[in-house]
Amino acid sequence: MSATLVTGIAELVTNDPARERGLLGIVEDAAIVLDDDRVNWIGSAHDAPDADDHLDLAGRAVLPGFVDSHSHLVFAGDRSAEFAARMTGTPYDGGGIAVTREATRAASDDELRALVAARVQEMAALGTTTIEIKSGYGLSIGEEVRALRIAREFTADTTYLGAHVVPPEHRGDRAAYVDLCSGAMLEACAPHARWIDVFCEPHSEFAFTKDEARQILTAGRERDLLLRLHGNQLGHGPGVQLAVELGAASVDHCTYLSDADVDALAGSDTVATLLPGVEFSTRSPYPDARRLVDAGVDVALASDCNPGTCYSSSMPLMVALAVREMGMSPEEAVYAATAGSARSLRREDIGGIRPGTSVQHLAVLSAPSYRHLAYRAGMPIAQRFDLAGLRLAH
Amino acid sequence: MSATLVTGIAELVTNDPARERGLLGIVEDAAIVLDDDRVNWIGSAHDAPDADDHLDLAGRAVLPGFVDSHSHLVFAGDRSAEFAARMTGTPYDGGGIAVTREATRAASDDELRALVAARVQEMAALGTTTIEIKSGYGLSIGEEVRALRIAREFTADTTYLGAHVVPPEHRGDRAAYVDLCSGAMLEACAPHARWIDVFCEPHSEFAFTKDEARQILTAGRERDLLLRLHGNQLGHGPGVQLAVELGAASVDHCTYLSDADVDALAGSDTVATLLPGVEFSTRSPYPDARRLVDAGVDVALASDCNPGTCYSSSMPLMVALAVREMGMSPEEAVYAATAGSARSLRREDIGGIRPGTSVQHLAVLSAPSYRHLAYRAGMPIAQRFDLAGLRLAH
Ligand SMILES: [Zn+2]
Ligand SMILES: [Zn+2]
Repeated sequence: MSATLVTGIAELVTNDPARERGLLGIVEDAAIVLDDDRVNWIGSAHDAPDADDHLDLAGRAVLPGFVDSHSHLVFAGDRSAEFAARMTGTPYDGGGIAVTREATRAASDDELRALVAARVQEMAALGTTTIEIKSGYGLSIGEEVRALRIAREFTADTTYLGAHVVPPEHRGDRAAYVDLCSGAMLEACAPHARWIDVFCEPHSEFAFTKDEARQILTAGRERDLLLRLHGNQLGHGPGVQLAVELGAASVDHCTYLSDADVDALAGSDTVATLLPGVEFSTRSPYPDARRLVDAGVDVALASDCNPGTCYSSSMPLMVALAVREMGMSPEEAVYAATAGSARSLRREDIGGIRPGTSVQHLAVLSAPSYRHLAYRAGMPIAQRFDLAGLRLAH
Repeated sequence: MSATLVTGIAELVTNDPARERGLLGIVEDAAIVLDDDRVNWIGSAHDAPDADDHLDLAGRAVLPGFVDSHSHLVFAGDRSAEFAARMTGTPYDGGGIAVTREATRAASDDELRALVAARVQEMAALGTTTIEIKSGYGLSIGEEVRALRIAREFTADTTYLGAHVVPPEHRGDRAAYVDLCSGAMLEACAPHARWIDVFCEPHSEFAFTKDEARQILTAGRERDLLLRLHGNQLGHGPGVQLAVELGAASVDHCTYLSDADVDALAGSDTVATLLPGVEFSTRSPYPDARRLVDAGVDVALASDCNPGTCYSSSMPLMVALAVREMGMSPEEAVYAATAGSARSLRREDIGGIRPGTSVQHLAVLSAPSYRHLAYRAGMPIAQRFDLAGLRLAH
């Protein structure tokens, strides 16, 4: 493939601290050269080298593709009526996660695959180029393996979440389900997963305690899975401390944090992943991102896209909510949605733009600045950097 | 043109009280027949007549296109840095509306036309099929006429808003500017406008008092313009009462309302138009839509798309915010964004789906229910009903 010089980049967000401007390492009036599907030169348009091909973006911003480090995409069924009931305070006995579990189990592999493919396509259309996908609606060995097999067709960052909830058939004997999650189910799922995750929440009888979560995560680590954790969502709890203790890459939600939790995060390599779409869609209080950033904690943003508590996968919306509701500046929010989330996935190859970055990990805005992601809330101004499509449009 | 039978409509939102289900007059598993670019049959798929052509929407929802009854699209310049400063509490002396006025004045007709065209296209891509466009960044006879001439190329619902703000050069003699707005500027603008609007707000020295607003609106009415009003945005004030007194079709913002204001609206034909994108983008308190709906007031939703206080034109976002933040049910919000806004423009031909409705005034969702507009916040699931495009996709 021949080299392509891309000019007309009003703002290039590199997230590279060596670049001139700010947290985002912005180069203004920038150019890049793409060669063999990789970036091989970055700089000012004035210094750009020649290339065989030339694409003028006419004043758009280019940034690292969004990294959505927390999603539950493998599901079937429609829970919009449950959402409407929750928003209007109407009693609703639709069954919650059990509805999703039943509908997902009833779907064929091809049906599930088509649903995930459509969701991944929606996300790419909004600028997301890396996606983590969890299991967790199967809750049996066969169904958890199936979810991970299908997820693996779309991403290397698959997460085994058999411990999403204690299923009804095991509520009489929680210990047996914890043993299953850390035993036979883990054995069956580990070959299909990079990560293991647990919903650790003392405020829900359907979630897992600190000791249960430790048993499951420790077993996962012994099977060479990397660790993440759902924690501190519904109230104060042990999730953050456990995540730090076990060296988890990320603890997700972090709505209710003590000073000791914040201190523990600040002194660790564990990223705090915030999921403001959940608070938007459940009308819950937002986590305090400002407090975390000011304490020096690494913060990521992700969508938590799932049918129950947030069926949005719009990373631009998450950026806008982080700015409107959680005290982040536009640049902090964009950094968290790219470099922060990349760090939460322990990935060095994404979340920034450097020589060597794959063009598959770039996004482009139909706007001149990253600031427009929050300024133009709800507008689909971000998209995957698609060289062929951009050539057609110009 | 031959007739086309459209089936596979999981939900057809008609807003027709004669239809079976709810405020939205929903027909489930519906079909429509399009003939000569108009709907000429509506009903259950089981009863659908034959037609030459057939399009299967495979489970999508069809609804009236969104009516964005409040926008300020004719502008140039970038104020995203001002937005970022406001969000982070950083002092910023960028000049506000003066920046927009200057940049707009400096733009050629063709440049402005291209900017408006791009904005209208963005709105269509999110399901908006009718747009009101105001002048108001000119603040001189020539520039106000130019804005309206360009707006008229895109919509019949143009609004003369010379009284958007008292410009600096007139602040020493407000009465002279009010005379201009209700005199020579009105004369020049009226041929290009259907509506007249005033920013009536005692809390801002740059806005217009009740008496000033009355003078301008009354003069407009004498020139056969229909009336609308920006009122009660920044604090309690006379806007609502004046709008009702003068028989305005709409009073827009309505954030601060007394019980007497709500009573006056409930007993009038004046629609209360809520603009929650402004509150989102300025971190201001949201108006209480629940109170208005419960009092029997006709409520509309619109974007107020403008560079200063809300550069979003996403009607799906406005629906989601109305549900999350203003106490509306998903069906009330969708009704307000379609039928409510149509009423605020005194238009009978839009805001619902009936035999005779133009296909240009339909929208389609990549989702099975109107509920997904709030459930899937930030996702571009709505689009203009484009028969050719839908044929290609299926
Ligand atoms: Zn989750
Ligand atoms: Zn306005």
